[in-house]
Amino acid sequence: MIINGVVIDDTFSEAFSMRATRVIITAINYKWARHAAETMTGFATSVIGCRVEAGIERAMGNHETPDGRPGMSVLLFSTDRKTLQKQLEARVGQCVLTCPTTAVFSGMDNEDQIALGKNLRYFGDGYQNSKLIGDKRFWRIPVMDGEFVCEEMAGVQKAIGGGNILVFARTVSQVLLACEAAIDSMSMLPNIILPFPGGGVRSGSKVGSKYKGLSASTNHYFCPTLKGLAGNDLAKNIEAVMEIVIDGLTAEDIRLAMKRGIEAVCDLGKSQGIEKITGGNYGGKLGEHHFHLREIVDE
Amino acid sequence: MIINGVVIDDTFSEAFSMRATRVIITAINYKWARHAAETMTGFATSVIGCRVEAGIERAMGNHETPDGRPGMSVLLFSTDRKTLQKQLEARVGQCVLTCPTTAVFSGMDNEDQIALGKNLRYFGDGYQNSKLIGDKRFWRIPVMDGEFVCEEMAGVQKAIGGGNILVFARTVSQVLLACEAAIDSMSMLPNIILPFPGGGVRSGSKVGSKYKGLSASTNHYFCPTLKGLAGNDLAKNIEAVMEIVIDGLTAEDIRLAMKRGIEAVCDLGKSQGIEKITGGNYGGKLGEHHFHLREIVDE
Amino acid sequence: MIINGVVIDDTFSEAFSMRATRVIITAINYKWARHAAETMTGFATSVIGCRVEAGIERAMGNHETPDGRPGMSVLLFSTDRKTLQKQLEARVGQCVLTCPTTAVFSGMDNEDQIALGKNLRYFGDGYQNSKLIGDKRFWRIPVMDGEFVCEEMAGVQKAIGGGNILVFARTVSQVLLACEAAIDSMSMLPNIILPFPGGGVRSGSKVGSKYKGLSASTNHYFCPTLKGLAGNDLAKNIEAVMEIVIDGLTAEDIRLAMKRGIEAVCDLGKSQGIEKITGGNYGGKLGEHHFHLREIVDE
Amino acid sequence: MIINGVVIDDTFSEAFSMRATRVIITAINYKWARHAAETMTGFATSVIGCRVEAGIERAMGNHETPDGRPGMSVLLFSTDRKTLQKQLEARVGQCVLTCPTTAVFSGMDNEDQIALGKNLRYFGDGYQNSKLIGDKRFWRIPVMDGEFVCEEMAGVQKAIGGGNILVFARTVSQVLLACEAAIDSMSMLPNIILPFPGGGVRSGSKVGSKYKGLSASTNHYFCPTLKGLAGNDLAKNIEAVMEIVIDGLTAEDIRLAMKRGIEAVCDLGKSQGIEKITGGNYGGKLGEHHFHLREIVDE
Repeated sequence: MIINGVVIDDTFSEAFSMRATRVIITAINYKWARHAAETMTGFATSVIGCRVEAGIERAMGNHETPDGRPGMSVLLFSTDRKTLQKQLEARVGQCVLTCPTTAVFSGMDNEDQIALGKNLRYFGDGYQNSKLIGDKRFWRIPVMDGEFVCEEMAGVQKAIGGGNILVFARTVSQVLLACEAAIDSMSMLPNIILPFPGGGVRSGSKVGSKYKGLSASTNHYFCPTLKGLAGNDLAKNIEAVMEIVIDGLTAEDIRLAMKRGIEAVCDLGKSQGIEKITGGNYGGKLGEHHFHLREIVDE
Repeated sequence: MIINGVVIDDTFSEAFSMRATRVIITAINYKWARHAAETMTGFATSVIGCRVEAGIERAMGNHETPDGRPGMSVLLFSTDRKTLQKQLEARVGQCVLTCPTTAVFSGMDNEDQIALGKNLRYFGDGYQNSKLIGDKRFWRIPVMDGEFVCEEMAGVQKAIGGGNILVFARTVSQVLLACEAAIDSMSMLPNIILPFPGGGVRSGSKVGSKYKGLSASTNHYFCPTLKGLAGNDLAKNIEAVMEIVIDGLTAEDIRLAMKRGIEAVCDLGKSQGIEKITGGNYGGKLGEHHFHLREIVDE
Repeated sequence: MIINGVVIDDTFSEAFSMRATRVIITAINYKWARHAAETMTGFATSVIGCRVEAGIERAMGNHETPDGRPGMSVLLFSTDRKTLQKQLEARVGQCVLTCPTTAVFSGMDNEDQIALGKNLRYFGDGYQNSKLIGDKRFWRIPVMDGEFVCEEMAGVQKAIGGGNILVFARTVSQVLLACEAAIDSMSMLPNIILPFPGGGVRSGSKVGSKYKGLSASTNHYFCPTLKGLAGNDLAKNIEAVMEIVIDGLTAEDIRLAMKRGIEAVCDLGKSQGIEKITGGNYGGKLGEHHFHLREIVDE
Repeated sequence: MIINGVVIDDTFSEAFSMRATRVIITAINYKWARHAAETMTGFATSVIGCRVEAGIERAMGNHETPDGRPGMSVLLFSTDRKTLQKQLEARVGQCVLTCPTTAVFSGMDNEDQIALGKNLRYFGDGYQNSKLIGDKRFWRIPVMDGEFVCEEMAGVQKAIGGGNILVFARTVSQVLLACEAAIDSMSMLPNIILPFPGGGVRSGSKVGSKYKGLSASTNHYFCPTLKGLAGNDLAKNIEAVMEIVIDGLTAEDIRLAMKRGIEAVCDLGKSQGIEKITGGNYGGKLGEHHFHLREIVDE
């Protein structure tokens, strides 16, 4: 399969089951909601090093949020409910509770729930109050600008982490611009985040290492400076590879994001130095979700 | 002391000795240097909850950086060298090594040093190379877009965390705008960061709590909804308080930032709802650095 | 009618019939589409001084744009078709044709049309080509990065300019933050723009002046420093007034924006210094469109 | 002369004498100063189509501005004093006078001056006041958020417009990224602006046209789709050319910007698809200022 000169590899991207939650941060205006949301989702590129993968999903108008103020929707993904809750609490406690004028709410109506304000309320030192609205409990914690309002629990659901596409190009400039075009359109989609800085990754890794205690190391098969090595897959004219990693609530969300990304990259095409798109996988043994590139393109 | 109707309290802000490092992140352009720098300095508001306090110091032109590319200067503060190194390595590993086209260098020429690329090099799985330029060693780690260049060590120095001013106002809108003006001018200064989201803090805390295991809780003396409580300091007309926390390399850096911040807040003055500026302290028993507000104003 | 302590005046906002067009600017990524869109819509706050009122409507994903690339939707309003076309051509010629990688398309499928690329094509010095796709003609003009693609004609339709709300507050800080909250939510709506810088206006004007040749001058009835003057409407406690001006494709679009704005301002309410919301009008004699505030709130 | 594989052409960039002014816009915070400055400098890419070329020079801290508030420094260039004044007045009147909380001051202490607030004051309808501080007169015009303060006159000086470099590359992606790197570093310099959208230009033009009444048309010698034409200079492997235009207060300012830009482009070099850098000129007959590329590189 070749689109605009770009080979779409006959392979799949391998992704993992995760748990995800969505919270809505509101504030007096977008400026402050964004400050909280950006800080809260920083240092959250990979569950391996950061325990959680997080990002801003979208901005919300005042008619869409629980308290009628401008807001930001944030998605967080982790390997299990317990870690997810711990990270959610730590990050809301450090980056939202602290941030002027903010409030935080669950952005998912699932039966399965994790603590959002349930434990954070103790920061109130006994002066916190709660209110039950319908079947949801909200805490009001006295702070210096009034009260920090937070919902007691946040919905949690099964989700998928590590969907991806890998783009092969003749130079760094070319792979970067093609990925920027893809990232720009992918990041407008609901229910997904691109957890790495700016949405791109250049440090592809393989399982294992020659050094003890290191469980992963650079994927030397995809490093252009290591073309002489056994197993290095790169064609002579490939000098740069970039990955876009996608976490999504469902398989459909990831499929759609992959489709949009592949379309954007192929739109630039071979004349802009793009040679191939492939999917990152571990032979299908590690992740439960397999996203076949050619099927996605044909959908 | 009263400036433009604003009472400058006769007290001090109490700050703590810390260790700090500066790294310079370069990339093919600002967009990608900023992606790495913002992600790396996220979730870094307070050493208590995040182990490190971090922020972007400034953008750097290509004539100022070690490799002649556009860059961002980042400051990180922690309680001790060991924690600082651990956080620096984790954050560079997750947010810079991964980020397309970046490189990272020490931004401080101190004899005292912590590992920057020294251990990250093992990600190269034996394919990494080093080069000695003068007395500095640099590592080149093969990645998918070429090589990630990082300096082996980064300078570290004594520094100060937790310098602050506290602004008392009649309403939230007023305290927020006065602090925004202060933050805008303070954040242009070198050698400092304002670690909290957007530079402002509304969750002032006191030492201790009525709950076991919680070492800090809301500073109920400064909560406008708790005015009836014993010890609550707030005058009847104060409905909002906000803090600006400053970490700086030296006492002079913090003094200058406090001075600029106080000037900006007083410029709005009593007619814009600002009543008082004070300093956060613990009676002088916890922190080694005392910044007297009135002295700073008079400098 | 009083909402959260804020008086909703029993009056209307008076607006004018205009002509509007929408164009879609695409580029290799959002960064460059935004550069073109921001530059093209600058210096376009008021038809009186700028001949056109313009702004970015929203970002568009690659699946939404005519050429499958990331894009920006831009709205332009003017008093008549001829002026609108002249401004559209001048601004596309100076700010889009010049901008790397961009293309421009009509964003309205109306029978009524004005020239978009029809005359700009002559920049091609005879080397331009056209292609008919369906019933639309597109021009390809050779430029240094390849070809500038632009649709020949852009749809134009009747529209409305000068919808507005006026917010009265006790201080500048308060009126500014209330308007920021309103602007943040209003600017997410389709089919409208807020043409003034950042969406806010503080220079309300009245018809006429004591100086010859000046057709408008400061609305001294709403200036807090002129409270002693005959006709000055301001209550003793009002120290700041701000206007939000809305241009929209239809009356419904403006009504919805006004509703969202009023809700946002009232959400802050009297406790945040907001006293009243009114509408700017000229007694109903100048503009054909009257938007009654209380009706809009009740919708 | 070849740097990192990039040919530096043995030619010069030809630039024109202009008149320039600098104004400082202050506001309650950067957000609002930036709103005014961006709007005021929009649609100002070329004197031919916009009458003025304008841009933001830099942000200023509260200790640097005349009224001690956060500010933005803006530069405007035009062909002559009269046009410059007319544009300055129109743009300040539409985009600064209207913008909440702003004030505007001269940013140049020259004896030669043009009107800044001198005529705008009549908007005050007789209620304006002036104050003489030293030898400078300031006007205070009543507006709805208090008073708009503007200096009566702004300094004006001789300046230079149209300094430039032209970058030749193998693909659009590559020329764009190289120019972004150059623009990022050039835009940090004082005394210059890059007037085109995002700093880049892809519509190089030649004097004259085959169509009557058109004084300029596409420079077909530099269009990659027109390689077969007589006079088309492009080598077979050049598929994209981009220009960076620089306006500066002095020849030294432009030389420094060109130097930084050339360095940034060459840093990417031939391996990233960059083949040549040249200068745009008209044989030396139109512009009084000639900037020789090789001299500038050697400085």
